[in-house]
Amino acid sequence: MSKIDETIRRIAPLDQGAERAALARLDALTKPQGSLGRLEEIAARYAGIRGDASARMGRGAVLLFAGDHGIAEAGVSAYPAAVTVEMLRNIGAGGAAISVLARRFAYALTVTDVGVATDTSADPFPGVCYRRVAAGTRNFLLGPAMTHEEAVRAIEIGIETADTAVRAGATIIGIGEMGIANSTSAAALLSAATGVAPAKLVGRGTGIDDAGLRRKLAAVERALQLHRENLRGGLDLLAALGGFEIAAMAGACLGAAAARVPVVVDGFIATAAAAMAQRIEATVRDSMFFSHQSAEGGHALALEALGARPLLDLRMRLGEGTGAALAMNMIESAVALFQQMATFASAGVSGKLE
Amino acid sequence: MSKIDETIRRIAPLDQGAERAALARLDALTKPQGSLGRLEEIAARYAGIRGDASARMGRGAVLLFAGDHGIAEAGVSAYPAAVTVEMLRNIGAGGAAISVLARRFAYALTVTDVGVATDTSADPFPGVCYRRVAAGTRNFLLGPAMTHEEAVRAIEIGIETADTAVRAGATIIGIGEMGIANSTSAAALLSAATGVAPAKLVGRGTGIDDAGLRRKLAAVERALQLHRENLRGGLDLLAALGGFEIAAMAGACLGAAAARVPVVVDGFIATAAAAMAQRIEATVRDSMFFSHQSAEGGHALALEALGARPLLDLRMRLGEGTGAALAMNMIESAVALFQQMATFASAGVSGKLE
Repeated sequence: MSKIDETIRRIAPLDQGAERAALARLDALTKPQGSLGRLEEIAARYAGIRGDASARMGRGAVLLFAGDHGIAEAGVSAYPAAVTVEMLRNIGAGGAAISVLARRFAYALTVTDVGVATDTSADPFPGVCYRRVAAGTRNFLLGPAMTHEEAVRAIEIGIETADTAVRAGATIIGIGEMGIANSTSAAALLSAATGVAPAKLVGRGTGIDDAGLRRKLAAVERALQLHRENLRGGLDLLAALGGFEIAAMAGACLGAAAARVPVVVDGFIATAAAAMAQRIEATVRDSMFFSHQSAEGGHALALEALGARPLLDLRMRLGEGTGAALAMNMIESAVALFQQMATFASAGVSGKLE
Repeated sequence: MSKIDETIRRIAPLDQGAERAALARLDALTKPQGSLGRLEEIAARYAGIRGDASARMGRGAVLLFAGDHGIAEAGVSAYPAAVTVEMLRNIGAGGAAISVLARRFAYALTVTDVGVATDTSADPFPGVCYRRVAAGTRNFLLGPAMTHEEAVRAIEIGIETADTAVRAGATIIGIGEMGIANSTSAAALLSAATGVAPAKLVGRGTGIDDAGLRRKLAAVERALQLHRENLRGGLDLLAALGGFEIAAMAGACLGAAAARVPVVVDGFIATAAAAMAQRIEATVRDSMFFSHQSAEGGHALALEALGARPLLDLRMRLGEGTGAALAMNMIESAVALFQQMATFASAGVSGKLE
C-alpha cells in the first residue's frame, strides 16, 4: 500500500463521544453556559479530534514548506523569485514573522525546502530541512506544474514531516508556506475546487500592481482552460496547477489527521492545500481549524465555499503560517480554560435561578 | 485640585511622531508592506500611546473590579446576587476564566471589591483587594444608584489601581468586571451615551429568559426616563445609573491614559465604562484598544456608535476581562513582531520589483 493510501486509511472522523463529554464539562465550569462563545466549541472540537475527553495538550508545531513556481515567469508577483531563497534563509535564521511568533509561543518550527529554484543544500542554511522534489515547478501555462510522481513525493514529504512532529510530541500542528507566485497557483486550485470564478479569487498577493493583477487573472483563467481534463482529483489538481509546498501542506493535513492531531490552516495558500487534502480524503476536514480570514483576494469566498469559519480576521496576508500560529495560541487558550477553570461544585458558586 | 482633575490634566493625545516612526520601521521589515494587517496598525498605535517609537514592552496587568447592583432586586439577572461574592472568592482563588488566562499570559491580575453587597473584608478572600465604596449600589428605579461622592470615590479607586499597576511595571492594562445585574446598568449607560435605543442594546446577560429580558428592558427604559435630567456628564451618568465597578473601570481608563499606558477594554460592561471615561475626558479615547465584540445584546451597535473596531469576535459574553486578556496577548504579539523581525537590509532580502 502506498504511504498516502496507508495514511488515508488511518484517518477517523471526529470522536463525538469525547466532544460531547467535553461540552458537558464546559457547562459545569464557573461561567454562564456558552459564555466563552467559540472558545467552548474549539475546546470541545479539540477533544473530539484528539479522541480524548480530557483534551490533554502537548506542544505546538508549525510546519512551513517553501517552493518555487514556474508561473513566476509570467510576471504574476510583485517580488522577484529570488526572494523565496532569501526568505528561506531569513526564516531559518529567525528573522521572519513566523520565526518571531514560533519563539513567542514556544512552537517547534520546521522549515522544509520542498522545491526552491535555487539549491542551497550543499551549503545549507541553518534551521532548514532539505527535502527537495525539484528546483521549482514548471510553468503550468506550458504543461502540468509537476508530474504525478512529483505530486505524490511532495505529499509524502508533508505526511512524513507531520509524523515527525507528532512523534516529537506535537498535539496541534499549523501549516504555512513561502514561495513567490504561489498565490497564483492557490487561486487556480481554489477556483477548481470551489467553482468560484477566478476573477473573484485572484488577489494582489505580495502587492502586485493593476497590470500584474490582470496578467495573474489571465494566467489562472488560461491554466484552468488548459488543464480542464485534469481538475477532478486532489492529486491531479496538484500535479496540474499546484506547488510543491502546497502539496506538502496537503500531505501534512493528512498526516496530522491520521495521528488525531488538529491541523490549523493558515491563509489563502494553505486553504488551497486544505481543499486539496479534502479532495483526497474528505474526512480530513474533521481535523481542521481554519485560522483566519486573509485579506488576500477571495479568501472569504473560498472559506465560505468550503464551509469554513475562520477564528480571526486581522486583515493579514503574509503566509508563513503566521495566522495559523496566532490561531493555535487562541485554541490553546480555549483548552487551558477548559482544563483549569473551577466547576460550580468545586468552587461553591450558585447556579442559575430556575 | 481633585485627583480626577489632576489625572485628566496629564492625559495627552497620541504621539503621532512615535506612531509614524513605528509605521516607517514596519515598512522596512521582511514582509510585503501592510501584510500583517491590523497587527501593524496595533503596533504603531501602541508606540503612539506610549510615546516611544521603539515600543518597549513590560508586563501586562488585568484590573478586575467587582460590585453589586441594587437593580438586581428587579429580577433582571439569571443568577442570584450571591454569585458576585462567590465569584469574587473563585477569582481570587484562581478558578475563574480570567484567573486561567492571567496565569497563562503571566499578567498581574488585581481583583478589587469596590462594592460587593456581602462584606468579606473581615475574613478576607486571598487575592482580593478591599476598597469598598458601599455594600452595593441602590436600585436606580428608586433614585440615583450612588451619590456624587460615591461616584468620585469609585473613579478614584480605579485611578489609584491603575497607578499601582503602572508603578509595578505594567505597560498595557486590561479592564474587566464582575457583578450580578451589571449588564442592566451598562445597557442604560450605553444607551444614554450613544443614543442607541435600549431595545437594541439590552441583552440576556448571564442568560436570562424572555420574561426576565422584558423586565430588564422595562427597567432600563424607566431608569432613562426617571434620570433624564442627569444624563449628560460622565460623572452624573455614573451616579444615576452606574455601578461601582463600572466607575472604577472608567477611572482605570483615565489613570492608564495619564500614564501613557494603553488600556484594553473588555466587553459590553467595560465598554460602558470606556464610554463614561470618554464623557469625562474625550482624549482618553486615544489610549484605548477595544478587545472584542461581545455576543451580549447590542455590543456591536454600541461599538459602532463609539467608532470602535474590536480586535476579536469570538461570540464571548463572560466579562471578567477575559476578552481583554486575549486581545492584550494579540497586541503583545503585534509588538513582538515589530521589535524582533529582521529588516530587508539586515536579512539581505530583495525588495519589491519596480
